[in-house]
Amino acid sequence: MRFARVATPEGMTFAVVEGETVKQIEATPFTAPNFTGKEWSLDQVRLLAPMLPSKVVAIGRNYADHVKEVFQQSAEHLPPTLFIKPPTSVTGPGAPIKIPEFATNVEFEGELALVVKKPCKNVKAADWKSVILGYTVVNDVSSRDLQFSDGQWARAKGIDTFCPLGPWIETDLDSIDVEDLPIKAYLTHDGKEELKQDSNSNQMIMSIGEILEFITASMTLLPGDVICTGSPAGTAEMVPGDTIRVEIPGVGVLENPVERA
Amino acid sequence: MRFARVATPEGMTFAVVEGETVKQIEATPFTAPNFTGKEWSLDQVRLLAPMLPSKVVAIGRNYADHVKEVFQQSAEHLPPTLFIKPPTSVTGPGAPIKIPEFATNVEFEGELALVVKKPCKNVKAADWKSVILGYTVVNDVSSRDLQFSDGQWARAKGIDTFCPLGPWIETDLDSIDVEDLPIKAYLTHDGKEELKQDSNSNQMIMSIGEILEFITASMTLLPGDVICTGSPAGTAEMVPGDTIRVEIPGVGVLENPVERA
Repeated sequence: MRFARVATPEGMTFAVVEGETVKQIEATPFTAPNFTGKEWSLDQVRLLAPMLPSKVVAIGRNYADHVKEVFQQSAEHLPPTLFIKPPTSVTGPGAPIKIPEFATNVEFEGELALVVKKPCKNVKAADWKSVILGYTVVNDVSSRDLQFSDGQWARAKGIDTFCPLGPWIETDLDSIDVEDLPIKAYLTHDGKEELKQDSNSNQMIMSIGEILEFITASMTLLPGDVICTGSPAGTAEMVPGDTIRVEIPGVGVLENPVERA
Repeated sequence: MRFARVATPEGMTFAVVEGETVKQIEATPFTAPNFTGKEWSLDQVRLLAPMLPSKVVAIGRNYADHVKEVFQQSAEHLPPTLFIKPPTSVTGPGAPIKIPEFATNVEFEGELALVVKKPCKNVKAADWKSVILGYTVVNDVSSRDLQFSDGQWARAKGIDTFCPLGPWIETDLDSIDVEDLPIKAYLTHDGKEELKQDSNSNQMIMSIGEILEFITASMTLLPGDVICTGSPAGTAEMVPGDTIRVEIPGVGVLENPVERA
Protein backbone atom coordinates (compact mmCIF):
# COMPACT_ATOMS: atom_id res chain seq x y z
CA MET A 1 0.00 0.00 0.00
CA ARG A 2 1.19 3.51 -0.76
CA PHE A 3 0.57 6.05 2.00
CA ALA A 4 0.87 9.69 1.04
CA ARG A 5 0.33 13.02 2.74
CA VAL A 6 -1.44 15.36 0.36
CA ALA A 7 -2.66 18.91 0.09
CA THR A 8 -6.20 18.85 -1.33
CA PRO A 9 -8.61 21.70 -2.04
CA GLU A 10 -10.14 20.81 1.34
CA GLY A 11 -6.91 20.75 3.37
CA MET A 12 -4.08 18.41 4.21
CA THR A 13 -4.72 14.73 4.81
CA PHE A 14 -3.12 11.33 4.84
CA ALA A 15 -4.27 9.15 1.95
CA VAL A 16 -3.70 5.89 0.12
CA VAL A 17 -2.60 6.13 -3.51
CA GLU A 18 -3.93 3.44 -5.86
CA GLY A 19 -2.83 4.05 -9.43
CA GLU A 20 -4.02 7.58 -10.21
CA THR A 21 -6.56 7.63 -7.38
CA VAL A 22 -5.92 9.24 -4.01
CA LYS A 23 -8.20 7.90 -1.28
CA GLN A 24 -8.50 9.84 1.97
CA ILE A 25 -8.00 7.89 5.20
CA GLU A 26 -9.29 8.85 8.63
CA ALA A 27 -6.13 8.64 10.70
CA THR A 28 -2.46 8.07 9.92
CA PRO A 29 -0.44 5.37 8.14
CA PHE A 30 0.29 3.77 11.52
CA THR A 31 -3.07 2.01 11.72
CA ALA A 32 -5.02 -0.07 9.20
CA PRO A 33 -6.59 2.48 6.84
CA ASN A 34 -10.19 3.47 7.39
CA PHE A 35 -11.30 5.09 4.12
CA THR A 36 -13.56 8.14 4.39
CA GLY A 37 -14.91 7.61 0.88
CA LYS A 38 -13.46 10.91 -0.32
CA GLU A 39 -11.24 10.55 -3.40
CA TRP A 40 -9.26 12.71 -5.77
CA SER A 41 -7.16 12.01 -8.82
CA LEU A 42 -3.40 12.44 -8.40
CA ASP A 43 -3.37 15.59 -10.54
CA GLN A 44 -5.94 17.25 -8.25
CA VAL A 45 -3.72 17.08 -5.16
CA ARG A 46 -0.19 18.07 -4.24
CA LEU A 47 1.94 15.34 -2.72
CA LEU A 48 3.75 16.49 0.44
CA ALA A 49 6.60 14.85 2.28
CA PRO A 50 4.81 11.64 3.34
CA MET A 51 5.89 12.02 6.97
CA LEU A 52 7.07 14.79 9.30
CA PRO A 53 9.67 12.85 11.27
CA SER A 54 10.86 13.63 14.80
CA LYS A 55 14.33 12.86 13.47
CA VAL A 56 16.06 11.85 10.26
CA VAL A 57 18.92 9.49 11.04
CA ALA A 58 21.29 8.99 8.14
CA ILE A 59 24.09 6.58 7.40
CA GLY A 60 27.03 8.13 5.62
CA ARG A 61 29.78 6.35 3.71
CA ASN A 62 27.65 3.24 3.07
CA TYR A 63 28.69 2.72 -0.58
CA ALA A 64 32.39 2.15 -1.29
CA ASP A 65 32.32 3.94 -4.66
CA HIS A 66 30.79 7.06 -3.10
CA VAL A 67 33.33 7.07 -0.25
CA LYS A 68 36.05 7.08 -2.86
CA GLU A 69 34.59 9.86 -5.01
CA VAL A 70 33.94 12.21 -2.07
CA PHE A 71 36.76 11.44 0.36
CA GLN A 72 39.45 10.05 -1.97
CA GLN A 73 39.92 7.23 0.52
CA SER A 74 38.88 3.60 0.68
CA ALA A 75 35.81 2.56 2.64
CA GLU A 76 38.04 0.30 4.74
CA HIS A 77 39.62 3.41 6.23
CA LEU A 78 36.36 5.35 6.43
CA PRO A 79 33.64 2.96 7.61
CA PRO A 80 29.92 3.90 7.68
CA THR A 81 29.05 6.65 10.15
CA LEU A 82 25.88 8.23 11.51
CA PHE A 83 24.59 11.78 11.21
CA ILE A 84 21.32 13.61 11.74
CA LYS A 85 19.31 15.86 9.45
CA PRO A 86 16.86 18.15 11.27
CA PRO A 87 13.10 17.83 10.67
CA THR A 88 13.11 21.37 9.26
CA SER A 89 15.24 20.19 6.32
CA VAL A 90 12.43 17.91 5.08
CA THR A 91 10.50 18.99 2.01
CA GLY A 92 8.14 17.26 -0.38
CA PRO A 93 8.11 15.97 -3.96
CA GLY A 94 8.13 18.78 -6.50
CA ALA A 95 9.05 21.41 -3.90
CA PRO A 96 12.12 23.50 -4.66
CA ILE A 97 15.50 22.77 -3.10
CA LYS A 98 16.55 26.30 -2.09
CA ILE A 99 20.27 26.93 -1.99
CA PRO A 100 21.53 29.91 0.04
CA GLU A 101 24.51 31.86 -1.34
CA PHE A 102 26.93 30.60 1.34
CA ALA A 103 26.17 26.92 0.62
CA THR A 104 28.49 26.28 -2.30
CA ASN A 105 29.10 23.11 -4.28
CA VAL A 106 25.71 21.61 -3.45
CA GLU A 107 25.26 18.01 -4.60
CA PHE A 108 22.32 15.61 -4.74
CA GLU A 109 22.49 12.16 -3.12
CA GLY A 110 19.71 9.80 -4.16
CA GLU A 111 18.99 7.22 -1.48
CA LEU A 112 16.55 4.59 -0.28
CA ALA A 113 14.82 5.72 2.93
CA LEU A 114 12.96 3.73 5.58
CA VAL A 115 10.07 5.00 7.70
CA VAL A 116 9.81 3.67 11.26
CA LYS A 117 6.54 2.03 12.35
CA LYS A 118 6.80 1.83 16.13
CA PRO A 119 8.98 2.95 19.03
CA CYS A 120 12.01 0.68 19.12
CA LYS A 121 15.40 0.26 20.80
CA ASN A 122 18.04 -2.46 20.53
CA VAL A 123 16.52 -4.02 17.40
CA LYS A 124 18.37 -7.11 16.18
CA ALA A 125 19.39 -7.03 12.52
CA ALA A 126 17.20 -10.03 11.66
CA ASP A 127 14.12 -8.33 13.12
CA TRP A 128 14.32 -5.06 11.17
CA LYS A 129 11.11 -5.59 9.21
CA SER A 130 9.08 -5.69 12.42
CA VAL A 131 9.81 -2.00 13.12
CA ILE A 132 9.62 -0.58 9.58
CA LEU A 133 6.42 0.85 8.11
CA GLY A 134 7.74 1.14 4.58
CA TYR A 135 10.13 2.55 2.01
CA THR A 136 10.41 5.93 0.40
CA VAL A 137 12.97 7.94 -1.56
CA VAL A 138 15.20 10.64 -0.12
CA ASN A 139 17.63 13.13 -1.60
CA ASP A 140 20.35 13.84 0.98
CA VAL A 141 21.26 17.27 -0.42
CA SER A 142 24.74 18.28 0.73
CA SER A 143 26.95 21.34 0.39
CA ARG A 144 30.33 19.66 -0.10
CA ASP A 145 32.16 22.89 0.77
CA LEU A 146 30.36 23.30 4.11
CA GLN A 147 30.73 19.58 4.78
CA PHE A 148 34.49 19.83 4.61
CA SER A 149 34.94 23.27 6.16
CA ASP A 150 32.66 22.47 9.14
CA GLY A 151 33.99 18.96 9.68
CA GLN A 152 30.58 18.10 11.12
CA TRP A 153 27.93 17.52 8.43
CA ALA A 154 24.86 18.82 10.28
CA ARG A 155 24.83 22.24 8.63
CA ALA A 156 25.96 21.14 5.14
CA LYS A 157 23.13 18.59 5.05
CA GLY A 158 20.66 20.28 7.40
CA ILE A 159 19.73 23.47 5.56
CA ASP A 160 15.98 24.04 5.09
CA THR A 161 14.76 22.05 2.00
CA PHE A 162 17.93 19.89 1.91
CA CYS A 163 15.92 16.71 2.63
CA PRO A 164 13.39 16.10 -0.16
CA LEU A 165 11.33 13.04 0.79
CA GLY A 166 8.65 11.07 -1.02
CA PRO A 167 6.59 10.62 -3.05
CA TRP A 168 4.87 8.20 -0.64
CA ILE A 169 5.57 5.35 1.75
CA GLU A 170 5.42 1.93 0.08
CA THR A 171 4.43 -0.49 2.85
CA ASP A 172 4.47 -3.75 0.91
CA LEU A 173 7.85 -4.82 2.34
CA ASP A 174 7.68 -8.32 0.93
CA SER A 175 6.98 -7.47 -2.72
CA ILE A 176 10.23 -5.49 -2.98
CA ASP A 177 13.67 -7.08 -2.81
CA VAL A 178 15.23 -4.31 -0.78
CA GLU A 179 18.67 -5.92 -0.94
CA ASP A 180 18.66 -5.71 -4.75
CA LEU A 181 16.99 -2.46 -5.67
CA PRO A 182 18.17 -0.16 -8.48
CA ILE A 183 18.80 3.46 -7.41
CA LYS A 184 19.07 6.05 -10.18
CA ALA A 185 19.36 9.82 -10.21
CA TYR A 186 18.89 12.02 -13.27
CA LEU A 187 20.08 15.63 -13.36
CA THR A 188 18.58 18.07 -15.84
CA HIS A 189 20.90 21.02 -16.50
CA ASP A 190 20.41 23.57 -19.29
CA GLY A 191 17.47 21.49 -20.49
CA LYS A 192 19.62 18.38 -20.94
CA GLU A 193 18.90 15.33 -18.78
CA GLU A 194 21.75 13.04 -17.76
CA LEU A 195 21.80 9.80 -15.74
CA LYS A 196 24.22 10.53 -12.88
CA GLN A 197 23.65 7.84 -10.26
CA ASP A 198 23.08 4.30 -11.50
CA SER A 199 23.59 1.85 -8.68
CA ASN A 200 21.85 -0.77 -6.58
CA SER A 201 21.13 -1.28 -2.90
CA ASN A 202 23.13 -4.51 -3.15
CA GLN A 203 26.22 -2.28 -2.99
CA MET A 204 25.50 -1.15 0.59
CA ILE A 205 28.33 -1.84 3.03
CA MET A 206 26.05 -1.98 6.07
CA SER A 207 22.84 -3.90 5.28
CA ILE A 208 19.43 -2.56 6.28
CA GLY A 209 19.24 -4.93 9.25
CA GLU A 210 22.71 -3.89 10.37
CA ILE A 211 21.73 -0.22 10.03
CA LEU A 212 18.70 -0.73 12.28
CA GLU A 213 20.76 -2.61 14.84
CA PHE A 214 23.51 0.04 14.72
CA ILE A 215 21.19 3.02 15.18
CA THR A 216 18.91 1.50 17.80
CA ALA A 217 21.81 0.38 19.98
CA SER A 218 22.14 4.11 20.70
CA MET A 219 18.88 5.84 19.90
CA THR A 220 15.23 5.04 20.39
CA LEU A 221 13.42 5.37 17.07
CA LEU A 222 9.87 6.74 17.07
CA PRO A 223 6.97 6.23 14.64
CA GLY A 224 7.58 8.32 11.54
CA ASP A 225 11.32 8.67 12.02
CA VAL A 226 13.18 8.42 8.73
CA ILE A 227 16.37 6.47 8.10
CA CYS A 228 18.53 7.35 5.09
CA THR A 229 20.53 4.33 4.01
CA GLY A 230 23.39 6.09 2.23
CA SER A 231 24.22 7.34 -1.23
CA PRO A 232 25.95 5.45 -4.03
CA ALA A 233 28.47 7.13 -6.35
CA GLY A 234 27.58 9.60 -9.06
CA THR A 235 26.65 12.57 -6.91
CA ALA A 236 27.27 15.85 -8.66
CA GLU A 237 26.69 19.56 -8.31
CA MET A 238 23.24 21.08 -8.80
CA VAL A 239 22.70 24.77 -9.50
CA PRO A 240 19.56 26.93 -9.51
CA GLY A 241 17.54 26.13 -12.63
CA ASP A 242 18.40 22.42 -12.54
CA THR A 243 15.99 19.59 -11.78
CA ILE A 244 16.98 16.43 -9.95
CA ARG A 245 14.99 13.17 -10.12
CA VAL A 246 15.69 10.09 -8.01
CA GLU A 247 14.08 6.81 -9.07
CA ILE A 248 13.77 3.58 -7.13
CA PRO A 249 11.62 1.04 -9.01
CA GLY A 250 8.66 -0.18 -6.96
CA VAL A 251 9.21 2.55 -4.39
CA GLY A 252 8.80 5.80 -6.27
CA VAL A 253 10.15 8.78 -8.16
CA LEU A 254 11.22 11.92 -6.29
CA GLU A 255 11.77 15.01 -8.44
CA ASN A 256 12.68 18.50 -7.23
CA PRO A 257 13.64 21.73 -8.96
CA VAL A 258 16.63 23.70 -7.65
CA GLU A 259 16.32 27.39 -6.81
CA ARG A 260 18.34 30.16 -5.18
CA ALA A 261 17.12 30.74 -1.59
CA MET B 1 9.73 33.65 35.50
CA ARG B 2 10.72 30.00 35.77
CA PHE B 3 8.74 27.62 33.59
CA ALA B 4 9.02 23.94 34.42
CA ARG B 5 7.47 20.72 33.17
CA VAL B 6 6.61 18.53 36.14
CA ALA B 7 5.25 15.11 36.99
CA THR B 8 2.67 15.53 39.74
CA PRO B 9 0.48 12.96 41.49
CA GLU B 10 -2.22 14.08 39.03
CA GLY B 11 -0.17 13.83 35.85
CA MET B 12 2.31 15.88 33.83
CA THR B 13 1.85 19.61 33.47
CA PHE B 14 3.65 22.84 32.69
CA ALA B 15 4.07 25.05 35.74
CA VAL B 16 5.69 28.18 37.09
CA VAL B 17 8.19 27.72 39.92
CA GLU B 18 8.28 30.48 42.55
CA GLY B 19 10.67 29.68 45.35
CA GLU B 20 9.56 26.28 46.64
CA THR B 21 6.09 26.56 45.14
CA VAL B 22 5.07 24.97 41.85
CA LYS B 23 2.01 26.63 40.28
CA GLN B 24 0.17 24.82 37.52
CA ILE B 25 -0.52 26.78 34.31
CA GLU B 26 -3.22 26.05 31.77
CA ALA B 27 -1.23 25.98 28.55
CA THR B 28 2.47 26.12 27.71
CA PRO B 29 5.33 28.53 28.41
CA PHE B 30 4.75 30.13 25.01
CA THR B 31 1.82 32.23 26.19
CA ALA B 32 1.36 34.46 29.24
CA PRO B 33 0.64 32.05 32.10
CA ASN B 34 -2.92 31.45 33.14
CA PHE B 35 -2.74 29.88 36.62
CA THR B 36 -5.21 27.11 37.39
CA GLY B 37 -4.90 27.69 41.15
CA LYS B 38 -3.46 24.23 41.70
CA GLU B 39 -0.13 24.27 43.55
CA TRP B 40 2.43 21.85 44.93
CA SER B 41 5.67 22.25 46.80
CA LEU B 42 8.84 21.42 44.85
CA ASP B 43 9.42 18.23 46.85
CA GLN B 44 5.96 16.91 45.89
CA VAL B 45 6.70 16.93 42.14
CA ARG B 46 9.38 15.58 39.84
CA LEU B 47 10.97 18.10 37.51
CA LEU B 48 11.14 16.84 33.92
CA ALA B 49 13.12 18.21 30.99
CA PRO B 50 11.40 21.61 30.71
CA MET B 51 10.83 21.20 26.98
CA LEU B 52 10.60 18.38 24.43
CA PRO B 53 12.33 20.07 21.50
CA SER B 54 11.83 19.26 17.82
CA LYS B 55 15.60 19.61 17.56
CA VAL B 56 18.62 20.35 19.71
CA VAL B 57 21.13 22.40 17.75
CA ALA B 58 24.53 22.57 19.39
CA ILE B 59 27.62 24.66 18.83
CA GLY B 60 30.86 22.75 19.25
CA ARG B 61 34.34 24.18 19.80
CA ASN B 62 33.02 27.49 21.17
CA TYR B 63 35.53 27.82 24.04
CA ALA B 64 39.23 27.95 23.14
CA ASP B 65 40.39 26.10 26.27
CA HIS B 66 38.00 23.20 25.56
CA VAL B 67 39.10 22.99 21.91
CA LYS B 68 42.67 22.62 23.15
CA GLU B 69 41.92 19.95 25.78
CA VAL B 70 39.85 17.77 23.43
CA PHE B 71 41.47 18.27 20.03
CA GLN B 72 45.01 19.31 20.99
CA GLN B 73 44.72 22.12 18.46
CA SER B 74 44.09 25.84 18.68
CA ALA B 75 40.62 27.25 18.16
CA GLU B 76 41.99 29.31 15.27
CA HIS B 77 42.48 26.10 13.33
CA LEU B 78 39.23 24.53 14.55
CA PRO B 79 36.52 27.23 14.55
CA PRO B 80 33.05 26.70 16.07
CA THR B 81 30.94 24.12 14.26
CA LEU B 82 27.35 22.92 14.39
CA PHE B 83 25.92 19.53 15.29
CA ILE B 84 22.55 18.07 16.22
CA LYS B 85 21.47 15.99 19.19
CA PRO B 86 18.25 14.02 18.62
CA PRO B 87 15.15 14.73 20.74
CA THR B 88 15.36 11.18 22.09
CA SER B 89 18.63 12.06 23.84
CA VAL B 90 16.86 14.59 26.09
CA THR B 91 16.30 13.65 29.72
CA GLY B 92 15.34 15.58 32.83
CA PRO B 93 16.97 16.77 36.05
CA GLY B 94 17.75 13.92 38.41
CA ALA B 95 17.21 11.27 35.74
CA PRO B 96 20.06 8.85 35.19
CA ILE B 97 22.54 9.24 32.34
CA LYS B 98 22.68 5.64 31.07
CA ILE B 99 25.93 4.61 29.44
CA PRO B 100 25.89 1.58 27.13
CA GLU B 101 28.94 -0.72 27.19
CA PHE B 102 30.14 0.34 23.72
CA ALA B 103 30.15 4.07 24.60
CA THR B 104 33.54 4.37 26.25
CA ASN B 105 35.26 7.41 27.72
CA VAL B 106 32.02 9.28 28.36
CA GLU B 107 32.48 12.87 29.50
CA PHE B 108 30.14 15.59 30.82
CA GLU B 109 30.00 19.04 29.19
CA GLY B 110 28.17 21.67 31.24
CA GLU B 111 26.68 24.37 29.04
CA LEU B 112 24.27 27.27 28.91
CA ALA B 113 21.23 26.43 26.76
CA LEU B 114 18.65 28.64 25.08
CA VAL B 115 15.03 27.75 24.39
CA VAL B 116 13.44 29.18 21.25
CA LYS B 117 10.21 31.19 21.58
CA LYS B 118 8.90 31.44 18.03
CA PRO B 119 9.52 30.18 14.52
CA CYS B 120 12.45 32.10 13.11
CA LYS B 121 14.85 32.18 10.17
CA ASN B 122 17.64 34.61 9.23
CA VAL B 123 17.76 36.23 12.68
CA LYS B 124 20.26 39.08 12.94
CA ALA B 125 22.71 38.81 15.84
CA ALA B 126 21.42 42.01 17.44
CA ASP B 127 17.85 40.68 17.47
CA TRP B 128 18.49 37.37 19.21
CA LYS B 129 16.48 38.19 22.33
CA SER B 130 13.33 38.59 20.27
CA VAL B 131 13.29 34.86 19.41
CA ILE B 132 14.45 33.36 22.73
CA LEU B 133 12.02 32.28 25.44
CA GLY B 134 14.65 31.76 28.11
CA TYR B 135 17.74 30.04 29.47
CA THR B 136 18.30 26.62 30.90
CA VAL B 137 21.20 24.30 31.66
CA VAL B 138 22.33 21.40 29.47
CA ASN B 139 24.86 18.63 29.85
CA ASP B 140 26.15 17.70 26.40
CA VAL B 141 27.20 14.16 27.38
CA SER B 142 29.74 12.81 24.89
CA SER B 143 31.55 9.51 24.35
CA ARG B 144 34.99 10.80 23.33
CA ASP B 145 35.93 7.42 21.87
CA LEU B 146 32.86 7.30 19.59
CA GLN B 147 33.31 10.97 18.74
CA PHE B 148 36.76 10.31 17.33
CA SER B 149 36.14 6.87 15.81
CA ASP B 150 32.92 7.98 14.05
CA GLY B 151 34.27 11.35 12.91
CA GLN B 152 30.69 12.61 13.01
CA TRP B 153 29.48 13.38 16.55
CA ALA B 154 25.80 12.49 16.18
CA ARG B 155 26.10 9.03 17.78
CA ALA B 156 28.69 9.94 20.45
CA LYS B 157 26.45 12.77 21.65
CA GLY B 158 23.06 11.41 20.59
CA ILE B 159 22.65 8.30 22.73
CA ASP B 160 19.41 8.12 24.75
CA THR B 161 19.80 10.16 28.00
CA PHE B 162 22.93 11.97 26.71
CA CYS B 163 21.18 15.36 26.82
CA PRO B 164 20.12 16.17 30.41
CA LEU B 165 18.20 19.47 30.33
CA GLY B 166 16.77 21.68 33.05
CA PRO B 167 15.79 22.30 35.76
CA TRP B 168 13.48 24.94 34.24
CA ILE B 169 13.43 27.76 31.69
CA GLU B 170 14.35 31.13 33.18
CA THR B 171 12.58 33.71 31.03
CA ASP B 172 13.77 36.89 32.70
CA LEU B 173 16.33 37.62 29.97
CA ASP B 174 17.15 41.09 31.23
CA SER B 175 17.96 40.23 34.85
CA ILE B 176 20.78 37.91 33.76
CA ASP B 177 23.98 39.12 32.12
CA VAL B 178 24.23 36.24 29.70
CA GLU B 179 27.58 37.46 28.36
CA ASP B 180 29.15 37.17 31.83
CA LEU B 181 27.68 34.10 33.45
CA PRO B 182 29.68 31.62 35.56
CA ILE B 183 29.40 27.98 34.42
CA LYS B 184 30.53 25.30 36.87
CA ALA B 185 30.40 21.52 36.86
CA TYR B 186 31.02 19.31 39.91
CA LEU B 187 31.74 15.60 39.56
CA THR B 188 31.16 13.27 42.50
CA HIS B 189 33.21 10.08 42.20
CA ASP B 190 33.65 7.52 44.99
CA GLY B 191 31.72 9.88 47.28
CA LYS B 192 34.18 12.73 46.71
CA GLU B 193 32.98 15.90 44.98
CA GLU B 194 35.35 17.89 42.80
CA LEU B 195 34.90 21.16 40.87
CA LYS B 196 35.82 20.23 37.29
CA GLN B 197 34.49 23.02 35.08
CA ASP B 198 34.89 26.58 36.35
CA SER B 199 34.42 29.02 33.51
CA ASN B 200 32.27 31.87 32.28
CA SER B 201 30.13 32.54 29.22
CA ASN B 202 32.40 35.54 28.54
CA GLN B 203 34.86 32.98 27.14
CA MET B 204 32.58 32.03 24.23
CA ILE B 205 34.18 32.47 20.81
CA MET B 206 30.86 32.93 19.00
CA SER B 207 28.51 35.16 21.02
CA ILE B 208 24.88 34.23 21.58
CA GLY B 209 23.72 36.67 18.92
CA GLU B 210 26.27 35.28 16.46
CA ILE B 211 25.13 31.73 17.27
CA LEU B 212 21.51 32.61 16.49
CA GLU B 213 22.50 34.33 13.24
CA PHE B 214 24.74 31.39 12.28
CA ILE B 215 22.14 28.69 12.90
CA THR B 216 19.15 30.51 11.43
CA ALA B 217 20.98 31.36 8.22
CA SER B 218 20.57 27.64 7.51
CA MET B 219 17.77 26.26 9.63
CA THR B 220 14.36 27.46 10.71
CA LEU B 221 14.09 27.23 14.50
CA LEU B 222 10.75 26.26 16.02
CA PRO B 223 9.20 27.02 19.42
CA GLY B 224 10.81 24.80 22.04
CA ASP B 225 13.95 24.07 20.04
CA VAL B 226 17.03 24.04 22.23
CA ILE B 227 20.39 25.62 21.43
CA CYS B 228 23.49 24.43 23.27
CA THR B 229 26.09 27.20 23.33
CA GLY B 230 29.23 25.09 23.81
CA SER B 231 31.28 23.68 26.62
CA PRO B 232 34.22 25.32 28.40
CA ALA B 233 37.28 23.31 29.49
CA GLY B 234 37.35 20.89 32.39
CA THR B 235 35.28 18.10 30.88
CA ALA B 236 36.22 14.72 32.30
CA GLU B 237 35.16 11.09 32.32
CA MET B 238 32.08 9.95 34.25
CA VAL B 239 31.49 6.33 35.18
CA PRO B 240 28.43 4.52 36.57
CA GLY B 241 28.00 5.45 40.22
CA ASP B 242 29.15 9.06 39.70
CA THR B 243 26.96 12.14 39.95
CA ILE B 244 27.42 15.23 37.79
CA ARG B 245 26.06 18.68 38.70
CA VAL B 246 26.13 21.71 36.42
CA GLU B 247 25.48 25.11 37.98
CA ILE B 248 24.73 28.42 36.26
CA PRO B 249 23.85 31.12 38.80
CA GLY B 250 20.48 32.71 38.18
CA VAL B 251 19.59 30.00 35.66
CA GLY B 252 19.65 26.77 37.64
CA VAL B 253 21.33 23.61 38.83
CA LEU B 254 21.19 20.42 36.79
CA GLU B 255 22.25 17.24 38.58
CA ASN B 256 22.19 13.69 37.20
CA PRO B 257 23.43 10.34 38.41
CA VAL B 258 25.36 8.09 36.03
CA GLU B 259 24.33 4.47 35.48
CA ARG B 260 25.17 1.54 33.22
CA ALA B 261 22.52 1.18 30.49
